[in-house]
Amino acid sequence: MARASLPVRNAKRSPEQMLKELRQRLREIRDLSGAAAVLNWDQSTYMPPGGAAARARQYAVVSKLAHERMTSAALGRLVDALAPYGETLPADSDDARLIAVVRRDFEKAAKVPARYVARASAIGAASYDAWTRARPANDFSAMQSWLQQMVDLSREYASYFAPYAHISDPLIDDTDEGMTYASVRALLAALRTELVPLVRAVCEEPLADTTCLHGDFAPDSQVAFGLSITRAFGYDLNRGRLDRSPHPFCTKFSADDVRITTRIRPDELTYSLFSILHEAGHAMYEQGVAQELADTPLGQGASIGVHESQSRLWENVVGRSFHFWDHYFPELQSRFSRQLASTSVETFYRAINKVERTLIRTEADELTYNLHIIIRFELETELLEGKLAVKDLPEAWRARYESDLGVVPPDDRDGCLQDVHWYGNGVGAAFPSYTIGNVLSAQFYAAALRAHPDIPQQIRAGEFGVLHGWLRENLYRSGRKFMPAKTVQRASGEPISIKPYMEYLRKKYGELYRLPLSSAPAERTRA
Amino acid sequence: MARASLPVRNAKRSPEQMLKELRQRLREIRDLSGAAAVLNWDQSTYMPPGGAAARARQYAVVSKLAHERMTSAALGRLVDALAPYGETLPADSDDARLIAVVRRDFEKAAKVPARYVARASAIGAASYDAWTRARPANDFSAMQSWLQQMVDLSREYASYFAPYAHISDPLIDDTDEGMTYASVRALLAALRTELVPLVRAVCEEPLADTTCLHGDFAPDSQVAFGLSITRAFGYDLNRGRLDRSPHPFCTKFSADDVRITTRIRPDELTYSLFSILHEAGHAMYEQGVAQELADTPLGQGASIGVHESQSRLWENVVGRSFHFWDHYFPELQSRFSRQLASTSVETFYRAINKVERTLIRTEADELTYNLHIIIRFELETELLEGKLAVKDLPEAWRARYESDLGVVPPDDRDGCLQDVHWYGNGVGAAFPSYTIGNVLSAQFYAAALRAHPDIPQQIRAGEFGVLHGWLRENLYRSGRKFMPAKTVQRASGEPISIKPYMEYLRKKYGELYRLPLSSAPAERTRA
Repeated sequence: MARASLPVRNAKRSPEQMLKELRQRLREIRDLSGAAAVLNWDQSTYMPPGGAAARARQYAVVSKLAHERMTSAALGRLVDALAPYGETLPADSDDARLIAVVRRDFEKAAKVPARYVARASAIGAASYDAWTRARPANDFSAMQSWLQQMVDLSREYASYFAPYAHISDPLIDDTDEGMTYASVRALLAALRTELVPLVRAVCEEPLADTTCLHGDFAPDSQVAFGLSITRAFGYDLNRGRLDRSPHPFCTKFSADDVRITTRIRPDELTYSLFSILHEAGHAMYEQGVAQELADTPLGQGASIGVHESQSRLWENVVGRSFHFWDHYFPELQSRFSRQLASTSVETFYRAINKVERTLIRTEADELTYNLHIIIRFELETELLEGKLAVKDLPEAWRARYESDLGVVPPDDRDGCLQDVHWYGNGVGAAFPSYTIGNVLSAQFYAAALRAHPDIPQQIRAGEFGVLHGWLRENLYRSGRKFMPAKTVQRASGEPISIKPYMEYLRKKYGELYRLPLSSAPAERTRA
Repeated sequence: MARASLPVRNAKRSPEQMLKELRQRLREIRDLSGAAAVLNWDQSTYMPPGGAAARARQYAVVSKLAHERMTSAALGRLVDALAPYGETLPADSDDARLIAVVRRDFEKAAKVPARYVARASAIGAASYDAWTRARPANDFSAMQSWLQQMVDLSREYASYFAPYAHISDPLIDDTDEGMTYASVRALLAALRTELVPLVRAVCEEPLADTTCLHGDFAPDSQVAFGLSITRAFGYDLNRGRLDRSPHPFCTKFSADDVRITTRIRPDELTYSLFSILHEAGHAMYEQGVAQELADTPLGQGASIGVHESQSRLWENVVGRSFHFWDHYFPELQSRFSRQLASTSVETFYRAINKVERTLIRTEADELTYNLHIIIRFELETELLEGKLAVKDLPEAWRARYESDLGVVPPDDRDGCLQDVHWYGNGVGAAFPSYTIGNVLSAQFYAAALRAHPDIPQQIRAGEFGVLHGWLRENLYRSGRKFMPAKTVQRASGEPISIKPYMEYLRKKYGELYRLPLSSAPAERTRA
């Protein structure tokens, strides 16, 4: 009798039981990751300075527990045991995809030794810390050995996935699953061919006047205005909120708690605003994932590039459009009546879309932005391939800026030290995602327009429900259920393509600068 | 050769190595508890409503991991192995006390089955939830079976510590280690004997006029004033901060991040203020514990009662004194000049110290407060002893209020349903700590005065450094290193005693109400 009451641990369990266990394990992992995200958010928003040392430890221990569970042998055995069952299910069912995606994630994670993860994390943190001092000091020499270590770490990481066609392939697969060095390079090369002459033509015209964007703008009014727009977009503040932090970001604690932050510059009218619209785009994507996928690895954006498409769509395609400001400028004007009394919506629209060849990626306009990315992608590829030595990076950076953008950084602070990515996160993964996001933002918007041609008129009326609804139904809902390429195909009806993006840029900037471009429409739609 | 490189797991380790491992384990437990506290703080301050479900899970998983580690067999073996070494160390050394306290905590925790802990936690949460509805609905019948379960849980908890002299002993030991039913009852009985005639005498005088405390007081100004006082007290805002929440509390994420919250009532001048001073007292105690004890079970207040003494000392003994307001009232008046223009400091002082027999414990004045506690202690003792049936509680409550306070609650909402403690936390532990705190607040203050007789004059000058320094040196520094009784003895030079407290009350209220009390001074010191 006593024996019968013992749990029968080795009995064969049904796939349904195993699936239930899998979901429970994944939910606990999500809960631990969500807890770690809360610790991180508080650190960036409200934590007093004294709290830093213990917070680093708290974050490390909670993250470690999540990581251990995600790479545990028990989880591996469970997904292996479930694989045959998964293949009997409809290929596009939630359960089939869950088993397939978790198995792929697990197999990828299992290839990377835990020791490497700990070492890479420690070196990355120390290198980041050094960068926070070296950049203001304009001291590239202080970063040289750190950057060498970061390059070596990226190369070592790639080696765990050998063989590969190109050393960047495993790195790109981490942010934009399914893409490769070859496909990214082709995309960027095609884009460059089209962008360079467009930028040249625009830059021959007089610079837009941005005087109206500078002055004294009360921070609380800036935040209130931005928040009212995100609410109109459809960001659910019952399941989100906006706080301030030194660097804007979006973070997710759970499907029903997705927060954004902004930084206010009291002397700039739109810096904070566009960061709010950008982060709200990320947040709406996460808020829109189907409830059935929540608390699993499918319950998030499809890839970094697809994620970025949503921040860019709401920030740029919507938020920097004339339709949008035709509706919102009067409200902005009434909030800052003293400063904007004599500014017309046309002047404001030209100011927020000023095109100029500059040195800083994060402050670049829509047209030149991708040129900054292309330079970084090519330089990091050469670093990874061993064709460019770390010590030669500053000179190579200057040369590429001169040839591609026609401007030369006076120092490394605004040159090869300007972005944290290589120094803090790793070399060879993050930058292309920004351009992939730009390209996809126009592609998704064009697809939404095909389904609902009156979206621009709705935007002009301050209505975003149809656009948001289309994105939710066709993109957000499916989360990370499908591979990014399939996600793009399902939502937009075609593979990733620069065509909608170039059409969008040609139309917008052709009108703004009255360029004689073949694809620009004969009449200005905003007349 | 290969064998030699393996870690020698079973070799005898030195006590120093084991102690190092113990400290590492304890620090990880603290870090997990700190992370759980962050989750809880965010839930009470900034979390959007949608986040609640996932947050409950996140909190549960992180708390569970901390609890598992604190009760792990490995930790038990470690402290057992360290015990002989601990006895060779100087008895008052940090290491000796650490080993002793952790061993005692572990042994106590080990007596309680994990199943009980999970069941008690689940029932407590469900009972709390029911109470949040039953109290506004004035529906004691809805709580009857929950309260019965809470009584049963407390009895079951006590049974794990049998034999005991009284069923309340194990419960009291959890909040006020070393105290017993007998010692608490003796303390409260002595207090009652002295308080009842004092309250009677005061209540024969006319009621103080509190008109000046009511009006319209801008929340931001209230918070700014309160915060400026806590800063003057010595609350280190580099290692703390103040936010708003539905119920005020103090929480500790680490030794260097101890936060407080308050709730604002825009129509009441001092409700928020005194809650801020109260929570700042708790926070200063935690901030003052010696760095060497941080991240261990010694790095916190000595007991709930001793902790409460510090919130009461800063809120009442300092914050409701005439000295204090002689300095701060002009500032308060200038912040709320419209409302307070014609109010004198004497009128204000009388208003914030109004004595009145009322129904609600949390709103009671210093004099009657302890009578509320004594009623609760006696009723919960009878519940635990089985002498009072749960169904008879409302009637017993009414009878005790009538006999002890001369007021009868018109309903259970303001009667036996008013406090959450029995319904959410458990029956038989929490209430006496409040009165122990009141008693000790005066005892510690009197000891500080013996060392520095000019403290009242300093307070009158808005200077709190000497008082804070004395408390830090004599009380805060030692944290939970010693048993509460020894902590009290070391700091005040005597065992817990109601004498300083009764002297404090007699002097203060004797002056306020010009009573012919033998121990009241002949002249008013604030003349």
